[in-house]
Amino acid sequence: MTTAATALDAVLAQVDAGLDQSLDRLKALLRIKSISTDPAFAAECQRAADWLVADLEGLGFTAAARPTPGHPVVVAHGPQTPGTHVLFYGHYDVQPVDPIELWHSDPFEPVIKDGADGRTIIVGRGTSDDKGQLMTFIEACRAWKAATGALPVRISMMLEGEEESGGKNLPPFMRDNAAELQADIALVCDTDMWDRQTPSITTMLRGLVGEEITISCANKDLHSGMFGNAARNPNQVLAEIIASLRAPDGSVTLPGFYDDVAEVPDAVKKQWQGLGFDQAAFLGEAGLAIPAGEQNRSVLEMVWSRPTCEINGMIGGYTGDGFKTVIPAKASAKISFRLVSGMDPVKIRAAFRQHVQERIPADCSVSFKEHGGSPAITVPSDGLHLRKALTALSDEWNKEAVITGSGGSIPVAGDFKKILGLDTLLIGFAHVDDAIHSPNEKYDLESFHRGIRAWVRVLAAFAE
Amino acid sequence: MTTAATALDAVLAQVDAGLDQSLDRLKALLRIKSISTDPAFAAECQRAADWLVADLEGLGFTAAARPTPGHPVVVAHGPQTPGTHVLFYGHYDVQPVDPIELWHSDPFEPVIKDGADGRTIIVGRGTSDDKGQLMTFIEACRAWKAATGALPVRISMMLEGEEESGGKNLPPFMRDNAAELQADIALVCDTDMWDRQTPSITTMLRGLVGEEITISCANKDLHSGMFGNAARNPNQVLAEIIASLRAPDGSVTLPGFYDDVAEVPDAVKKQWQGLGFDQAAFLGEAGLAIPAGEQNRSVLEMVWSRPTCEINGMIGGYTGDGFKTVIPAKASAKISFRLVSGMDPVKIRAAFRQHVQERIPADCSVSFKEHGGSPAITVPSDGLHLRKALTALSDEWNKEAVITGSGGSIPVAGDFKKILGLDTLLIGFAHVDDAIHSPNEKYDLESFHRGIRAWVRVLAAFAE
Repeated sequence: MTTAATALDAVLAQVDAGLDQSLDRLKALLRIKSISTDPAFAAECQRAADWLVADLEGLGFTAAARPTPGHPVVVAHGPQTPGTHVLFYGHYDVQPVDPIELWHSDPFEPVIKDGADGRTIIVGRGTSDDKGQLMTFIEACRAWKAATGALPVRISMMLEGEEESGGKNLPPFMRDNAAELQADIALVCDTDMWDRQTPSITTMLRGLVGEEITISCANKDLHSGMFGNAARNPNQVLAEIIASLRAPDGSVTLPGFYDDVAEVPDAVKKQWQGLGFDQAAFLGEAGLAIPAGEQNRSVLEMVWSRPTCEINGMIGGYTGDGFKTVIPAKASAKISFRLVSGMDPVKIRAAFRQHVQERIPADCSVSFKEHGGSPAITVPSDGLHLRKALTALSDEWNKEAVITGSGGSIPVAGDFKKILGLDTLLIGFAHVDDAIHSPNEKYDLESFHRGIRAWVRVLAAFAE
Repeated sequence: MTTAATALDAVLAQVDAGLDQSLDRLKALLRIKSISTDPAFAAECQRAADWLVADLEGLGFTAAARPTPGHPVVVAHGPQTPGTHVLFYGHYDVQPVDPIELWHSDPFEPVIKDGADGRTIIVGRGTSDDKGQLMTFIEACRAWKAATGALPVRISMMLEGEEESGGKNLPPFMRDNAAELQADIALVCDTDMWDRQTPSITTMLRGLVGEEITISCANKDLHSGMFGNAARNPNQVLAEIIASLRAPDGSVTLPGFYDDVAEVPDAVKKQWQGLGFDQAAFLGEAGLAIPAGEQNRSVLEMVWSRPTCEINGMIGGYTGDGFKTVIPAKASAKISFRLVSGMDPVKIRAAFRQHVQERIPADCSVSFKEHGGSPAITVPSDGLHLRKALTALSDEWNKEAVITGSGGSIPVAGDFKKILGLDTLLIGFAHVDDAIHSPNEKYDLESFHRGIRAWVRVLAAFAE
């Protein structure tokens, strides 16, 4: 056995003994309102980056909040030891908190409380996505340092501040610093476990095309009594466009949308069937019962291997209390497409924009705003690091870790491959009921605690 | 000639001489933020009512702000002289001011400035709808009082505070006080002139059904990456419902919607053709060129004699800056129908609700909120008072006054007939470009000045 493996028990004991202090540090980071999409919180994003820099410097890393045209990227390097070199990725920015009235406590004053099914949970914006997850890795490093005086492998980190707002500044940053960011493998902690008992590594991620459209008709708001029928109503135009995006059978109607979409191989489908996914329970957790997507597709296919079109937001006219008989001048919507392997974000965006343009009346207009675009990626589902990580996760949960797909998009995994030539292991400890992007986001205390222990084991395995 | 007719020139001179003071009083009323639809402004509505009571008491009226379950109704009675007894109606409440960022000046700090085409305008919320208009009548009374020491006819007033918010408390108030509110004729000042040079009396008004629907799908906001395709998106459901309300030919699709809609008689259509309405100019004023309503109908038909369905507001999901990949739990819309003569508001509301219900997926739900309902009315287009008023208006503008329809809804005119048995004369001095319900609402100084003079003449004619 190597030194790292010998030390493992001591490091795990250190994690257990220091859990309260780990939680205190997590809470300090959670209190910083680093909402990246809202310019009003730019200083808070800088503060989160600075907090991480200071924390990592305390662990012996050389760290800095590196400027970008947007929010800074935290880059940190541990000592240049021989052997495996990992590049860890997480993001310190969080989603907005609205609708704020649905939160049971201040989103930025984290509370630890009893959750469902006897669980203990940490409630607050970013607990699960992604501050709680990224801190599992940092706390694992701290435990190694405290118990053995050193990190078991060479570690670099890249902690982003724009994951929740398009992240368009990260790829150029990676290109500009490609030499500095070289490593043997990238680690990303921003995904779910398969279920509460089963750890997993995600190897299939969808891409994303985000679009915002604004439809302009009259040159000012009009009185609907004076102009109704005669004046074009942008709410109506927008609704007709949105309605036209999905066919009655649940499929997306954009021409060519499915042209580059491959069927999942039978072998993979068979493996998925073996997962025992309970689609009634999955929808039931959200209070729903009827899958909304393509008929004759399983829910797992819908969320892992089929592309989507979702209306993330829409607004037009008077939406306050009471009533106002107005025909608004404008109406707008935020629309996202999740892409699967083979689909080209550029092509899908163009098809969407053409579809919309064709539906704008001649005396009205539309403007488009891009909110991120990334292709789907498939991580190789074999390799030494993957096998070592699966074993480490299985050891921690005493249950065999599984390889899964994911409905979400983590564009950085594609960029690691494309820009740095790195394979990525997507290892995360979140749960589907964590309510990320929603009010009362939470992270299980067990996710945090076992997450730290799992990283301790993964690093030990990589040191062997 | 009667005393009233003899005094006319003196009273008109009094109006001209006192115009600056009249404007000062109007500005004082405009500064009160009496937004009736927003409960936050309830005290301001009371303040507007109290201001009117004090002003009318100063003119010798017995006046009081009479309580209702909502905002007060100002009722005032002048001396009980013999002869014609008129009941004047106006409303002191105003529309909300959003989008506030589009106003060029504070909506509640009225400014007098140069407008288009060499006009002088008063800018502020309520200048045209309806504080400026109702003050034309009060200032006419004041001029009569100042110049002759008395009002020329017996005058009562009923000034409402909920016209912009459904007005559901007024009909019961009228029923409860029917004896007190008796008169020979009702006068309403809340309508437009035909054009800048041509005064008009409106004899055809559409009714209104206001509805707010909220569609609920999941029990919380969901991550669109995790749940997209699988979970029903209420934005999509709402958009499909809205899209389903209008056919490609511009007609409204509710079953039975046009069943009770009569064609305008050929004679009336012929009269309308004689008005020389310029539909390109009407739409062009709003920056539009293509009529959006039923094909093969003129714009005048669309806005005067055909029922509408307009989406006054809709909202769902994330609508702030940036992007949020959410599937919201709810989405909602405010929808209004303008009704023409013969249509039953109860029947239309029921048809709408059934149409919506039929389109709600089995695991989702919808709630409905009523925002007012009134049938269309047609005022008799003959009669002594109408003829006298037309002559008075023609004298003031030195151009023959016309009889017109209107796209708007003034439910009180129907209630005057139904509850009090009174015919109504709808006489107003607003213009189509006044931007009522919109940012930078204005009233022409000429509308205000000539409006006061016109009422002076109408009252003189009624005294004969």
